[in-house]
Amino acid sequence: MAAGPNAKGLTMIEIPARCGKATRLGAGQCVRVINTFGQQVVDTWAFNAADIGEFMSMEHTRIAIERIIPQVGDALVTNRRRPILRLIDDTSGGIHDTLVAACDRWRYELLGCPTYHANCTDNLAAALGEMGVAPPETPAPLNLFMNIPVIDGNRIAVVPPISTPGSYVTLRAEMDCLVAFSACPQDMVPINGAAMTPTAAHFEVLG
Amino acid sequence: MAAGPNAKGLTMIEIPARCGKATRLGAGQCVRVINTFGQQVVDTWAFNAADIGEFMSMEHTRIAIERIIPQVGDALVTNRRRPILRLIDDTSGGIHDTLVAACDRWRYELLGCPTYHANCTDNLAAALGEMGVAPPETPAPLNLFMNIPVIDGNRIAVVPPISTPGSYVTLRAEMDCLVAFSACPQDMVPINGAAMTPTAAHFEVLG
Repeated sequence: MAAGPNAKGLTMIEIPARCGKATRLGAGQCVRVINTFGQQVVDTWAFNAADIGEFMSMEHTRIAIERIIPQVGDALVTNRRRPILRLIDDTSGGIHDTLVAACDRWRYELLGCPTYHANCTDNLAAALGEMGVAPPETPAPLNLFMNIPVIDGNRIAVVPPISTPGSYVTLRAEMDCLVAFSACPQDMVPINGAAMTPTAAHFEVLG
Repeated sequence: MAAGPNAKGLTMIEIPARCGKATRLGAGQCVRVINTFGQQVVDTWAFNAADIGEFMSMEHTRIAIERIIPQVGDALVTNRRRPILRLIDDTSGGIHDTLVAACDRWRYELLGCPTYHANCTDNLAAALGEMGVAPPETPAPLNLFMNIPVIDGNRIAVVPPISTPGSYVTLRAEMDCLVAFSACPQDMVPINGAAMTPTAAHFEVLG
């Protein structure tokens, strides 16, 4: 499924497997992130369009919502504690992650990969780079569809997503922002499903 | 208890109530962080002394240790996934937090404070500033002694510490680093005890 208008006339944008893609949202616009093939984690970031130093922050969001995993209705807040995105719809089963860093070249080196491995950290930089913007840092992402259960209040595990093909989340921009996505290239642990085969995902900007 | 040599000849450094303090550690040196009055949260950061852009990262540490709360023996790792500090002793009961951002002026504004309120984010900048260093960002801190239980794998709560007066943790530097502490000034929620009265804490550098 490549980019192109769908039945509703909305343009479906591909986040190619192992790659990143960014878009600009005006306050009030929504983006639907579709787990096209069902078990693909999509790392997600948001930056204030007027001030790249203000961005969605998981450590500020957790205390704001008093939960580890946002649910429908919750606002994701920035490092200035202001709402930047709001989760307004979720057909994926509601399992996402806020605990774990974006993968990076060091992650794959530690897993034993002897050569360069595509990774979400570099994908963020590339996606924003296409818009002429450099991220000031790599904030901890909202890992859509990623399944990191917390066991006995402390231990965490890395397990496959529960999301199904075509399921999605919808995020509403609470301020003008740049939103970046990475279809996680992880193929050395089963975070993108037991087959460990990263796939594309898609998004469409609504209204 | 002010700064001065103790019975073992070690210099006890005060982290004054509501304030920050930093020190330099060589690889292999240890720092003991003492909860002098028992219920004081101490936000803690560590930066590579040779590269301030590499620092202790909670989102990288959680996946490295596969736990939310580090326990004795665990290495805290940087945003390059390298060990920077290791928890080698803990008499406090083992409850610390890695989930919640340092408090900042926006936190107190949202809580209704009409004027400037001391906060851990500014304390980090001031403590490193005393050493002539500016932090590149405010990483999510290791909140020593802070009690943020995870309930049913998702909800989090803000409750008083379980640590007792004089209990401590000992951290060993795994690389040359700058370590900064903030005796959290939070007095509007019971994170520093039900009395909501921030106190001093202390540290001493060992061997």
